[in-house]
Amino acid sequence: MADLISFARGAPSADLLPAEAVREAAQRALTDNPVRALSYGTGIGHPELCAWLADRHGNGLTAERVMVTNGSLEAGWMLFDHLLERGDTVVVEQPSYDRTLLMLERLGTRRVGVTLERDGIDVEALEQAIADGHKPKLVHIISNFHNPAGCTLSEAKRRRLVELSAQHGFWIFEDDPYREVRFAGAEELPTMLALAEGTEARVMHASSFSKTVSPGVRVGYLAGPAEEIGRLAKRAGETYISPNMLAEAIVYELCRSGGLDANIALVNVALAERRDAVVGALGDSIPEAEFVVPGGGYFLWLDLAQGSDTAGLLPLAKEQGVAFVAGPDFMLSGGEQSLRLSFASVPPGLVPEGISRIARALETQRS
Amino acid sequence: MADLISFARGAPSADLLPAEAVREAAQRALTDNPVRALSYGTGIGHPELCAWLADRHGNGLTAERVMVTNGSLEAGWMLFDHLLERGDTVVVEQPSYDRTLLMLERLGTRRVGVTLERDGIDVEALEQAIADGHKPKLVHIISNFHNPAGCTLSEAKRRRLVELSAQHGFWIFEDDPYREVRFAGAEELPTMLALAEGTEARVMHASSFSKTVSPGVRVGYLAGPAEEIGRLAKRAGETYISPNMLAEAIVYELCRSGGLDANIALVNVALAERRDAVVGALGDSIPEAEFVVPGGGYFLWLDLAQGSDTAGLLPLAKEQGVAFVAGPDFMLSGGEQSLRLSFASVPPGLVPEGISRIARALETQRS
Repeated sequence: MADLISFARGAPSADLLPAEAVREAAQRALTDNPVRALSYGTGIGHPELCAWLADRHGNGLTAERVMVTNGSLEAGWMLFDHLLERGDTVVVEQPSYDRTLLMLERLGTRRVGVTLERDGIDVEALEQAIADGHKPKLVHIISNFHNPAGCTLSEAKRRRLVELSAQHGFWIFEDDPYREVRFAGAEELPTMLALAEGTEARVMHASSFSKTVSPGVRVGYLAGPAEEIGRLAKRAGETYISPNMLAEAIVYELCRSGGLDANIALVNVALAERRDAVVGALGDSIPEAEFVVPGGGYFLWLDLAQGSDTAGLLPLAKEQGVAFVAGPDFMLSGGEQSLRLSFASVPPGLVPEGISRIARALETQRS
Repeated sequence: MADLISFARGAPSADLLPAEAVREAAQRALTDNPVRALSYGTGIGHPELCAWLADRHGNGLTAERVMVTNGSLEAGWMLFDHLLERGDTVVVEQPSYDRTLLMLERLGTRRVGVTLERDGIDVEALEQAIADGHKPKLVHIISNFHNPAGCTLSEAKRRRLVELSAQHGFWIFEDDPYREVRFAGAEELPTMLALAEGTEARVMHASSFSKTVSPGVRVGYLAGPAEEIGRLAKRAGETYISPNMLAEAIVYELCRSGGLDANIALVNVALAERRDAVVGALGDSIPEAEFVVPGGGYFLWLDLAQGSDTAGLLPLAKEQGVAFVAGPDFMLSGGEQSLRLSFASVPPGLVPEGISRIARALETQRS
């Protein structure tokens, strides 16, 4: 079998990792303030990084409303475990990030799926669900360059969700790791965190440096109401004293030196090229595929013809030397005719061959 | 008020942090294998570090029985949450590490305290508790240079605890972050992890690089039966994908280059000097204090005269410009006549003045 071309993993290929920039940042962090990097901190993590993040967000966000965490996945887990009890209703987009669905299941919550449209969650369907008697405690939204769906929540829907949060008292978990992985031509929309300022809406924003620096640094953050951040930071302190201060000191050095912005600029050009390569190859080899062309992020969500079976397709694809994730992994039910492609993980030169292999597997399955 | 001299925090003072060694290790880690440092890993963490740790332990330990974690505190939390259910009985030493007691309380376990003697837990009292009908699911033991008590579990007691684990089926959590913080003259005793090899005993060993490298790296590990490590690694993966690969890559570089051993040698000489300074000053200023002279670690546990009230002493001590932790924090009940001193945090030159301040506070309290 030829070498596997994997569109499965939501991570950039090795050539996009900023080894040199991180190496230089590590030097400076351990020269300028080694005590910060090497000592215990508290549950909020690296305080200067909290302040830098608050500034970066602007719109009234202050440092005491930010906590840095060991990645945004663990931060989400901590938030869920803190806010939710067994039997609580949580609205999830359909499709949604598979690990989130699993975490919410493990916590015994009642997950109510609401369809994702080309411009984000179907807000009218959410309102209908509430009118039908569902009382969500939390609504989980991946707002930019959705994983897995590639779509972005429109500004109008952002505003409406914030209004609904204020009206019905539910939390919005704005899960937003891809916001800065934005390609030329894509508009930057306000976060719901910003739109909630001065309202009664309750928004907890999560993001991460996994996509803008690299996943191995495991540095993410939460931003929200000061009181709730305080409670979460206390909980973090009880569980791990402080998150990783060494990695956070290195990330902070990248942030303040401009190394982060330089890397984002570089990576976003490379990723846009990969997106374009995948979109082009799909047009050539799998013209039946329907998808949102993402303005950033890592993912494309393909809807294939009615009656497709992507879970059954996967082993055939692997025989051809190509991998993806089948749609059902991201759904409470259904998803059989969909699949997720990560374009971050495949250098552009390999893309046409990779997509051809999927096309061949589809032919085999249908013949 | 004079500058605070704090014997409260279980962390070395800034001058003992190996900034240069970590800086050099970061350079090498990000030059030799940047992909490992910057990519996602899996729940076990840095695989080469797992293998190195298995080798370091020896005695039959293999890499698949080790997982690297974001510090050993979070690892303990994960283990407790995995193994224990509300109402389960857990035996804790008295005194024991305060954060462990809080975690076990938060999980709703029934904590049964067993007295600590000069050579570790009173094993006969543990056997009596079992004979009286207590059925521990887990026995929590800090085996070397105990926090807070300074004592070390004797080899005979280690062997007996392993036998009891095999006989009664309870888990031993061997919480052992100070093992390598061992001063000249202190014997190295076998771990219960090693003694359990080839028996039915169930030992989960936890340790950390917080004391041998620095706390800010937040790198710890668990070692135990392969099957249980596999389950815990799966759980870790579900919660945080992988622990911090960048920090682990740097720690691994320190390990394989000999930088770790060099730092341990350096730090242990410095810490022994601090211990000696505190022991000497106590003899001069607070001769009533009874304590185990620790052969390593960070802590001394003072028993003061009958009728002492260390919680009441603390604010008076702070007025004098000195801090410690009062005994009750480490006890399910009692501890009023005891207090914990960390000698790691105070440079030797400040020690006589610090201990004199405690003596003055005691005089004030008793006058």
